Amino acid sequence: MNTQVTWMPRGEDAAPVSSYLNAEQALQAFRTGMRALAGAVTLVTTRLADERFGLTATAVCSMSASPPRILACVNVQGRSYRAIAESRCMAINVLGTRHESLAKRFASPEADPFGEGEWTRAATGAPLLADALVAFDCEVAEMFVTRTHAVVIGEIRHIANGEDRDALLYVDGRFASVALMPAH
Amino acid sequence: MNTQVTWMPRGEDAAPVSSYLNAEQALQAFRTGMRALAGAVTLVTTRLADERFGLTATAVCSMSASPPRILACVNVQGRSYRAIAESRCMAINVLGTRHESLAKRFASPEADPFGEGEWTRAATGAPLLADALVAFDCEVAEMFVTRTHAVVIGEIRHIANGEDRDALLYVDGRFASVALMPAH
Repeated sequence: MNTQVTWMPRGEDAAPVSSYLNAEQALQAFRTGMRALAGAVTLVTTRLADERFGLTATAVCSMSASPPRILACVNVQGRSYRAIAESRCMAINVLGTRHESLAKRFASPEADPFGEGEWTRAATGAPLLADALVAFDCEVAEMFVTRTHAVVIGEIRHIANGEDRDALLYVDGRFASVALMPAH
Repeated sequence: MNTQVTWMPRGEDAAPVSSYLNAEQALQAFRTGMRALAGAVTLVTTRLADERFGLTATAVCSMSASPPRILACVNVQGRSYRAIAESRCMAINVLGTRHESLAKRFASPEADPFGEGEWTRAATGAPLLADALVAFDCEVAEMFVTRTHAVVIGEIRHIANGEDRDALLYVDGRFASVALMPAH
């Protein structure tokens, strides 16, 4: 499902967004653009007062190797964000293609999202998905909040690398897998 | 080229990294883990005093739609970082599979990396790749620096959405493309 939208003239004459777009058009352009930015699918989890929380996130990236840090952007309106802010811990569980139903489950948690999959408890307390491609157990090092989202920077305390490397992606509004390109 | 490494016991008994790993082992585990985190390949560019700078980056993600923000993690040792910090602008150009040579060129710029591709000048001054899947022209809203890397948060001023949606990925140490999964 490709979205083929060109909403802004390119080049020297491009006008600022605000000069010709209303808020709704700008939001639509933002969404169209971000849909093209392929992302790995992860479950960001935490534990607070023995309750587990989690959400599906693609806005996750490596920050630095020394100190070992990873970051996730989390909506500040969600229960998971509030739990992370209080518990000061999070795990980032990187999903494989066989985890598509888990990704959907955590994206719209009606029942207990942890009812599927094998979960263990990491040293920080955060839930780790036993068969994640890789799981990073983190203490929250820093958080920067804007109006709607927080950049949560985790300092990695544990890494559990699995053997499966068949990554689940989200791009153009749907799940996808990786196709290796021929070396040349 | 799969890396199949399990360097840390999983579950309740997992010991902290520091208790049984030396720095080199921890770094290796970090790299192995991050290689599994598939990422879209982008060129982060800026312009300072009419000189263009740029680097290949996969640590880029959407931050918020309102305000429209995107972030990139950039090594603070690089010339591009210093130029971004001074110019206060950056463009994030999302690459397609046909941009693999550009990605390599900007990852190890010996000659002028801008000698390949069609480049225009965005409103902020940052170089925009004319046929990027999508290009975000940003003013730098905030930067957070740790020892080695900065989280650069860009407030988006322009978005140029292209028609090509065939994203270039980097995963497990090599370039890859997206394979759509069957809907179900």
